[in-house]
Amino acid sequence: MSSFHHLKAGIHLSELAENPIDFSKEGVLTPKRIDAMVAEALEMKLFYATERVSDPVMDALFALAEETEAVKKMERMQAGEVVNAIEGYPSENRPALHTAMRDFFENRNSSQIAAEATTLAYAELEKLKIFLNDCDRFTDLVQVGIGGSELGPKAIYMALATYQKPKRNVHFLSNVDPDDAAHIFRNLDLSKTLVVSVSKSGSTLETLTNEEFVREWFKKAGLDPKDHIVAVTGKGSPMDDPTRYLASFYIWDYIGGRYSVTSMVGGVTLAFALGMDRFLDFLRGANAMDKVAMRKDAKQNLPLLSALLGIWNRNFLGLPTVAIIPYSQALHRLTAHLQQLDMESNGKRIDKRGHPVDFDTGPIIWGEPGTNGQHSFYQMIHQGTTTVALEFLGFKESQYREDLLYQGTTSQEKLLSNLLAQSIALAIGQKSDNPNKYFPGNRPNRILFGQRLDPFTMGAILSYYEHKVAFQGFIWNINSFDQEGVQLGKVLALKIIDQFAKQKEGKSLDAKDFPLGQAYLRHL
Amino acid sequence: MSSFHHLKAGIHLSELAENPIDFSKEGVLTPKRIDAMVAEALEMKLFYATERVSDPVMDALFALAEETEAVKKMERMQAGEVVNAIEGYPSENRPALHTAMRDFFENRNSSQIAAEATTLAYAELEKLKIFLNDCDRFTDLVQVGIGGSELGPKAIYMALATYQKPKRNVHFLSNVDPDDAAHIFRNLDLSKTLVVSVSKSGSTLETLTNEEFVREWFKKAGLDPKDHIVAVTGKGSPMDDPTRYLASFYIWDYIGGRYSVTSMVGGVTLAFALGMDRFLDFLRGANAMDKVAMRKDAKQNLPLLSALLGIWNRNFLGLPTVAIIPYSQALHRLTAHLQQLDMESNGKRIDKRGHPVDFDTGPIIWGEPGTNGQHSFYQMIHQGTTTVALEFLGFKESQYREDLLYQGTTSQEKLLSNLLAQSIALAIGQKSDNPNKYFPGNRPNRILFGQRLDPFTMGAILSYYEHKVAFQGFIWNINSFDQEGVQLGKVLALKIIDQFAKQKEGKSLDAKDFPLGQAYLRHL
Repeated sequence: MSSFHHLKAGIHLSELAENPIDFSKEGVLTPKRIDAMVAEALEMKLFYATERVSDPVMDALFALAEETEAVKKMERMQAGEVVNAIEGYPSENRPALHTAMRDFFENRNSSQIAAEATTLAYAELEKLKIFLNDCDRFTDLVQVGIGGSELGPKAIYMALATYQKPKRNVHFLSNVDPDDAAHIFRNLDLSKTLVVSVSKSGSTLETLTNEEFVREWFKKAGLDPKDHIVAVTGKGSPMDDPTRYLASFYIWDYIGGRYSVTSMVGGVTLAFALGMDRFLDFLRGANAMDKVAMRKDAKQNLPLLSALLGIWNRNFLGLPTVAIIPYSQALHRLTAHLQQLDMESNGKRIDKRGHPVDFDTGPIIWGEPGTNGQHSFYQMIHQGTTTVALEFLGFKESQYREDLLYQGTTSQEKLLSNLLAQSIALAIGQKSDNPNKYFPGNRPNRILFGQRLDPFTMGAILSYYEHKVAFQGFIWNINSFDQEGVQLGKVLALKIIDQFAKQKEGKSLDAKDFPLGQAYLRHL
Repeated sequence: MSSFHHLKAGIHLSELAENPIDFSKEGVLTPKRIDAMVAEALEMKLFYATERVSDPVMDALFALAEETEAVKKMERMQAGEVVNAIEGYPSENRPALHTAMRDFFENRNSSQIAAEATTLAYAELEKLKIFLNDCDRFTDLVQVGIGGSELGPKAIYMALATYQKPKRNVHFLSNVDPDDAAHIFRNLDLSKTLVVSVSKSGSTLETLTNEEFVREWFKKAGLDPKDHIVAVTGKGSPMDDPTRYLASFYIWDYIGGRYSVTSMVGGVTLAFALGMDRFLDFLRGANAMDKVAMRKDAKQNLPLLSALLGIWNRNFLGLPTVAIIPYSQALHRLTAHLQQLDMESNGKRIDKRGHPVDFDTGPIIWGEPGTNGQHSFYQMIHQGTTTVALEFLGFKESQYREDLLYQGTTSQEKLLSNLLAQSIALAIGQKSDNPNKYFPGNRPNRILFGQRLDPFTMGAILSYYEHKVAFQGFIWNINSFDQEGVQLGKVLALKIIDQFAKQKEGKSLDAKDFPLGQAYLRHL
């Protein structure tokens, strides 16, 4: 058993958790506390006065970061150390070098491994620049990919759609559900459509199936698929084939799917839609936050500070879920990306030496934008029986800057008022003689606040979350970079697919041939 | 304190929960069990062999339904009894008559109250028919509404987009975020745009603000907003004003927002997009499931059966969340609707007599479609430290029926194979000497399975979930039809909005004027 509580800071935090701060008492949440509990980097602020932490708790959390060498591990990760491994067992045994995909600006990483990865990444970027010069004939782009090859790129594309170039529409095809493909393709002019097919291994079932679908459509329209489909894949994979693709852009085994947005997995599509300059701004923001994540002072290191607050909520206050609520409609798919990023990285039950953990790891991540959520699930958050931890995001200015003064305030001001009001209300609650108007409060929450959701800020937010997740993995001493838990389902699915195929061919099934699958097939 | 465990069946279930069935043991999940644990109604099947229930548990759950008079309460709700009330305290004191909104077909409800509500609803449907005859000049419809006025209608519209009439595009504007409105309206031909503004009270801040935005846009385009905007609201509300709206359609105080999809809240938009016949098919499906929900035999009553399985997972196995995973991309917004439906209805901490409950009520509802989720958060579900209960949905046939044979099977078959494989894998897990390849199993899940996602089936699924939620509320003896928990945030938001307004006018703020709000404003 791997224990979290063998750590000195862990024991201290357990003691402190017996009497956490109680915001439902008068005078606990004060303007002074709000002023004191704010951290800042890259013109973004992290407000955390409404987390159930005291100064001793913060000190103990900082001590926990020291004791687990969190920042040193971050430096090593960015330098290309093999962080994706389980000691003593077969494992992927690789670095996780997503930060190298954007280290083109100031204060570059001096490690040789990281620098080589950056050089390779830059070469792809140069290839992309040239490729895009010849793309004006395309008005639509369909990215075919699933998991990390869809969620991150789609979330960022949606977030920055305001900055999109004219006649550069993007669609995402992910699900093996044939209706997904039919729905997207029935309205496209295929002669003007570019397809970006993304699979690192070149063997993802959904993506290969959908690409085949797409090829059929092009053929039916009298077009050669080779002139329209680009591959983003590992060098030498089955998809790295110039006879079948217009171009190939490369990714490497040290880029995990959920960490791949700033590589060519997101790059081709985002640069097509936004233009290269804005894509570079996005990378610049991510890179700047990568540097912030190496700050030694945890109070100045936003991703680390956020990770520590999350660990307090998860391991010491025992909260099973985190709702991530952007007060920005443009971020309506961000939570879906963060759901993968966090749950696939940290939904683990063994530590890096292969020992079962005896503490909780990654929580369930969920959420929808505010104010919408207020009219939906907030009832349960305010008055339900399971306490939810919350992470809010907000921005001072809107993207379009088209706003309306209605009853004395703009919509953006109304949006911000709701964000701040909810943060406070969830913490302090409300006393009442009417039990239905009683709010227990003490719903811990924090706000990441930026000036405006532009490409640079979006990059910084992406990196902030990547590193929050990595820091939690470092502190828990788990491997945040593999995903063995997705294998079993794949294996069983192939058995049932095989049964469907045999059925179709009129072959009889062997009784021993995965009888549980057969039992269901008889009922369909 | 209101205890769930004073019930005879509750005590019995607690005893049974000490040793729930263990699927990780060889021979526990068998084809025979799969054959036995399937319920059926309206050509839909509910497979629940992979729930952690035994025959004694099922018997005890059925006894719980009897003891709490669950089916009788359902009959009373559908007959128009006042179910939305807290005894001894001021409360909404109303029936919940959403089932009357679609009781136009066979075996109509014989209660006078319900029949009157149905007559009123039918009159609106007739008005709508006439109104739509004159709508060919509109190619786009924007529904302005938030919470129940958006989530349900949008989920159903997306689910049935395959069946959409040509040149009848629908958009949804909900968030007070000004970028949401700007993003939708910048590409519309306003002369051909119909707006449906939805607020029962006629006073929802977000909706009024957005409607004002919309009016400005029409004016700027030289159009009279009155010729383009329809109101869906309560009779006599501030929005029921023929001088400002092209038409008004009515809803009533006995229709809660989250239960309003089959009223005019969803009706105007869905009938515009799909045509009246398909909208009627949708209502027919919902109505048919309403009747199923009154079946006395719990094994034949799909919503009740599902509610009981959920109570077993929530109250006896102690699971805090439910992931709802449709293996159908068209249902990609269904979970967001069900999140509101369930969490706003049952995220409560007092019973109907105003006593605090001492058991868990509504869980956290979250999820994304499969197979996508498999490449995202399933890692955590398979190998994380917090057990997640799952509800899957699947269909034998695709909607478009455009499918491709690739490597011997169609995409639809691959999709189904994945669904079944995951259901089995989550239950049985996997033993391994490599701790990273060990899957504990015992992740309880069930599958609601239909032939094809058509309007009738969609109506049945909607009603199935409405009644699952209501049944859980009946058994917990809580009020599933109010939402006092959303009030506190609204009150505090208005205080901060007021501070923004004063700031803008150059007025100074009184130090006593919600100082917590002021503290944040100084930091922005």
